[in-house]
Amino acid sequence: MGNVIIGQSGGPTAVINSSLAGAISAAKKGGVPKIYGMHYGIEGFLKKDIIDIEDYLFDIDDLSILKRTPSAFLGSCRYKLPKIEGNEEVYATMFDTLDEYDIEYFMYIGGNDSMDTIKQLSDYAEAHGKKQKFMGIPKTIDNDLPITDHTPGFGSAAKFIATSMREIICDNESFGANDPKICVVEIMGRNAGWLTAASVLSRATDSTGPDLIYLPENPFDEKAFLERVEDLTKKKKSIVIAVSEGLKDAEGKLICEQNDDYAFVDAFGHRQLSGCGKILSNKIARTMGYKTRAIEFSLLQRCATHLASRVDIDEAYDVGYIACEAALAGETGKMVVINVTHREPYVVSYELADIHNIANIEKKMPNEWIINEGTFVSDEFVKYVKPLVVGSLTPYYAGGVPKHISLKNKRRHLN
Amino acid sequence: MGNVIIGQSGGPTAVINSSLAGAISAAKKGGVPKIYGMHYGIEGFLKKDIIDIEDYLFDIDDLSILKRTPSAFLGSCRYKLPKIEGNEEVYATMFDTLDEYDIEYFMYIGGNDSMDTIKQLSDYAEAHGKKQKFMGIPKTIDNDLPITDHTPGFGSAAKFIATSMREIICDNESFGANDPKICVVEIMGRNAGWLTAASVLSRATDSTGPDLIYLPENPFDEKAFLERVEDLTKKKKSIVIAVSEGLKDAEGKLICEQNDDYAFVDAFGHRQLSGCGKILSNKIARTMGYKTRAIEFSLLQRCATHLASRVDIDEAYDVGYIACEAALAGETGKMVVINVTHREPYVVSYELADIHNIANIEKKMPNEWIINEGTFVSDEFVKYVKPLVVGSLTPYYAGGVPKHISLKNKRRHLN
Repeated sequence: MGNVIIGQSGGPTAVINSSLAGAISAAKKGGVPKIYGMHYGIEGFLKKDIIDIEDYLFDIDDLSILKRTPSAFLGSCRYKLPKIEGNEEVYATMFDTLDEYDIEYFMYIGGNDSMDTIKQLSDYAEAHGKKQKFMGIPKTIDNDLPITDHTPGFGSAAKFIATSMREIICDNESFGANDPKICVVEIMGRNAGWLTAASVLSRATDSTGPDLIYLPENPFDEKAFLERVEDLTKKKKSIVIAVSEGLKDAEGKLICEQNDDYAFVDAFGHRQLSGCGKILSNKIARTMGYKTRAIEFSLLQRCATHLASRVDIDEAYDVGYIACEAALAGETGKMVVINVTHREPYVVSYELADIHNIANIEKKMPNEWIINEGTFVSDEFVKYVKPLVVGSLTPYYAGGVPKHISLKNKRRHLN
Repeated sequence: MGNVIIGQSGGPTAVINSSLAGAISAAKKGGVPKIYGMHYGIEGFLKKDIIDIEDYLFDIDDLSILKRTPSAFLGSCRYKLPKIEGNEEVYATMFDTLDEYDIEYFMYIGGNDSMDTIKQLSDYAEAHGKKQKFMGIPKTIDNDLPITDHTPGFGSAAKFIATSMREIICDNESFGANDPKICVVEIMGRNAGWLTAASVLSRATDSTGPDLIYLPENPFDEKAFLERVEDLTKKKKSIVIAVSEGLKDAEGKLICEQNDDYAFVDAFGHRQLSGCGKILSNKIARTMGYKTRAIEFSLLQRCATHLASRVDIDEAYDVGYIACEAALAGETGKMVVINVTHREPYVVSYELADIHNIANIEKKMPNEWIINEGTFVSDEFVKYVKPLVVGSLTPYYAGGVPKHISLKNKRRHLN
């Protein structure tokens, strides 16, 4: 039996390490001789930056703490492999490295860009009669992978957003005596509005929830937006608005690009966005003269493991476990998908899906779930998202602050 | 026996409602006939916007949920009473209102500006032979009240900052493969650096903690700052810096005022600051060409009750309870202060202090706790702050999101 290697890719989530813990557990259970980790994803692998995971996770509690550690324990990257055609030598070298470490099972935890890595490597293996198996493990707070009902990482980010949004609404309401107070909260999501939509979960008997929700799926009409805000100020003093970082106008131009300070392009060619909440809150302040505030959840929404959803952390673990188990059983070129058998009570099953139907494909919010002329989300969406944020996994606290594990946790030997 | 009135003032905290719950409990225990609330603080009181608290808190669990509800349940304000001299009619009217509602005990939960209200009202009562008793209940995330060892609200904000900072460091480290990645985190604190200093608590065996900590107590030297960052990039790839919103240069000019977009002056005449983290991260990006990110904790740091410190939530309750108990026993013109008898193990006692020694006075970080040429904080500070973030109080979850209570929770009657 050959060895296993696992890598993590793309933007971290609160539960990406839970998937790693799942894959490691399945490899241990399967009696795999060595469990390797790619240090900084496929980019590290290309440089043979490969670690023996059991040098770093050795105490009986380490896997439990790993499940509760945010961000990519192994290090991540945003690196897309070149096309096979014309780059055969790159692939030949990668397979030489796999053979050198006697690696037979290759697991990659990531989103739709990262799944391209699994697609290309499994295609190459098939075309060249290589024995290695390649499996994808879904991960993204953006919830934009196709086929799977939802993606690990999304539920915890949604729980953070719903909780923080409710706390912000409480705070914003506390000064409602005189003039309206308007707070614009900017939430991650370049092209898909799933996360911003999840802010609706802050609504309950004790909270109004956000007054308006704007997603990137619909063109953003600034004039209509300002009119809606003005209308709201006639009805209430505390107004909280959720906007997606990826809002675009009718011409497809990003709202946040109205201010050049905030543009940054990452290695996948995606613009790193931020600032559309600030831009819109400034516009409200300038046109209406009201007091406004912009809040950006920024990295907090993807790394708040202290507030992870139990459902999410468990599913993340499961997809990691099942991917490794399936690879050991001979599966390749596939990703584990979550199938929701019953929404309420919530029951899931897992399946394998062909990676060619997943890599590089983005799933957006269905049109029919976006209502009120693109300013809110439907009850069907609420039914969809609600079970994903349920439950907690208590952190291991040390001195009042959650304890994590990192690669600094190296097994010590006698000198 | 007369009635009680309670008000909340200034910026909300995660535990200001715990103090309210404490004061209500003491009033009930003392057999007070009616417990009134000022709707939106003293500003609401001046307009006779007064509510009967038991119309809104009637279920046996309501006080427990109130303890876990962020922000000011009664509504807050930023309103400073005019001086007594020359404004006697304002005070006479206020005492008429107190008499009208048969109010004998007046409790105000707030910071050093709000304690001025207690000072003036108790001075007026003494000068004019009024029977009413006035007690202050300390509250501020800024931890800048004198005499008391620390203030309720600070510990929970510190716990949020330490936890989120540790999660951010995890996230920032995950992409450390190539170029340095620099994250500047902006933390609240106009003149006192207590909260920014608390970011040091993210340091542990599993986390480096922030690399640099800049407080408003010391003048900010931009050249030296950029040199320190440049030096750090030679040693490590992931750099996280904590900066206080109130950083000022040697001339006393706020760093955040280098960008006019962000200036806003509140009703106390304080500038509402934000943006110094963004300004400094942009400077690093422009001078060194590295990838930077600015994160502002904004309102989240003062309203994250889901992550409140148990020590803080209990002390907030206690100071509220003791203030009301003391008023019923005839005390006036005082604020409850926390006295730490032993730091480790942590033991506190409560005392009353003359409001004249507290109102309008700001306590800053001691100079000797700011080390490394104003770029870090000392172990003595760590010893001071560590016990304040310990323990949690599990939220009441409903559907995966913490449940709160609001004035929408009105007792219903048969029609």
